[in-house]
Amino acid sequence: MAKISESTVSRLSHYYRVLEEVAAEGGKVISSQLLAEREGITSAQVRKDLSYFGSFGRRGLGYSVEHLREQIRAILGLDRRWRVAIVGAGHIGSALLAYRGFSSQGFDVVAVFDADAQQVGRTTGALQVRHIAQLSAADEIDIGVIATPVRAAQEVAEALVAAGVRGILNFAPRKLRVPDDVWVRTVDMTTEFEGLSFALTQPDGPRRRRAAG
Amino acid sequence: MAKISESTVSRLSHYYRVLEEVAAEGGKVISSQLLAEREGITSAQVRKDLSYFGSFGRRGLGYSVEHLREQIRAILGLDRRWRVAIVGAGHIGSALLAYRGFSSQGFDVVAVFDADAQQVGRTTGALQVRHIAQLSAADEIDIGVIATPVRAAQEVAEALVAAGVRGILNFAPRKLRVPDDVWVRTVDMTTEFEGLSFALTQPDGPRRRRAAG
Repeated sequence: MAKISESTVSRLSHYYRVLEEVAAEGGKVISSQLLAEREGITSAQVRKDLSYFGSFGRRGLGYSVEHLREQIRAILGLDRRWRVAIVGAGHIGSALLAYRGFSSQGFDVVAVFDADAQQVGRTTGALQVRHIAQLSAADEIDIGVIATPVRAAQEVAEALVAAGVRGILNFAPRKLRVPDDVWVRTVDMTTEFEGLSFALTQPDGPRRRRAAG
Repeated sequence: MAKISESTVSRLSHYYRVLEEVAAEGGKVISSQLLAEREGITSAQVRKDLSYFGSFGRRGLGYSVEHLREQIRAILGLDRRWRVAIVGAGHIGSALLAYRGFSSQGFDVVAVFDADAQQVGRTTGALQVRHIAQLSAADEIDIGVIATPVRAAQEVAEALVAAGVRGILNFAPRKLRVPDDVWVRTVDMTTEFEGLSFALTQPDGPRRRRAAG
């Protein structure tokens, strides 16, 4: 398989979401044009993205919604369950635990950890918060979610890696240093909010200038 | 002021977070080296980022934590309150409402909207869910958060823009079309999770290959 860029993988997730919605509405066939339109890109880009994985559609007939959805589901690794641990039982961690959307995509939160003795032993959702020092390879965690204060994030990343975790979703607004065989994705809501407040504070912000220039 | 890239603005947010933590620990002075280390970049990059806004530090003496924090706070527009509306009272919207971290940074959720008649009128947090059709310029919303299903996201973006909103934080996994004087930032947790499941599914993923090559 050719090397696939992160942006292609992200678009596959987006196509998958569209396909799920179209399937829920009873749609059987979808054109690359419609997929492209929903994503705001060209249909040529859609066909290129899907061509990495073989030929799914027939020219002029579009793609089978069910078939394409199953293919992308397998490509994204959503045809199995993933064991997720949340580290940090504060606001973000609790909000994530309360959010049930991940489970429907195959991501099961099976453990919650915290370094704060006040949090340890507390029950949140169906899980009891454990001390981070108890995290071990025996937990068989696939993906660790870092929802700790910034200052703890690097140390937690190292604890996750030591326990054999190879995928990290980082909610802490800082870069993490990890070995080359560990993947990190970042979700940084605060920084995104502040990117907006910055832009809205500018009397003549970057996009305005670009539009005028 | 020179044109500032989105990545510089994101790093300013990160520096701000570090400065808050150092201040909370009683630190008075911080070096560009320490800021750089926490962020995993060079100290030259830190000095360059901060130079956009004038000279804050003295060579060899480092930056005053309090002064630099106040400067970045003003630059990011965090020295005022922002009126935020959440559209979509489902899982993500409810989790955001439950999350109190934003308020401490100046982002006040003042309204919650939904298109679903079942949701309208329900009380969540201290707010009553209103129908999206009631959103108007009179709400004086600065930032709209889109936490709806994908298929509603574009329509909601247009309703926000029509109500004078110029900043949008989009949680729906799709691109939005907006006028040039409206800023969109995206937080796409599902796609980040799926980026990890994709990477972990590869027998010989992109980072491994890069490390070997």
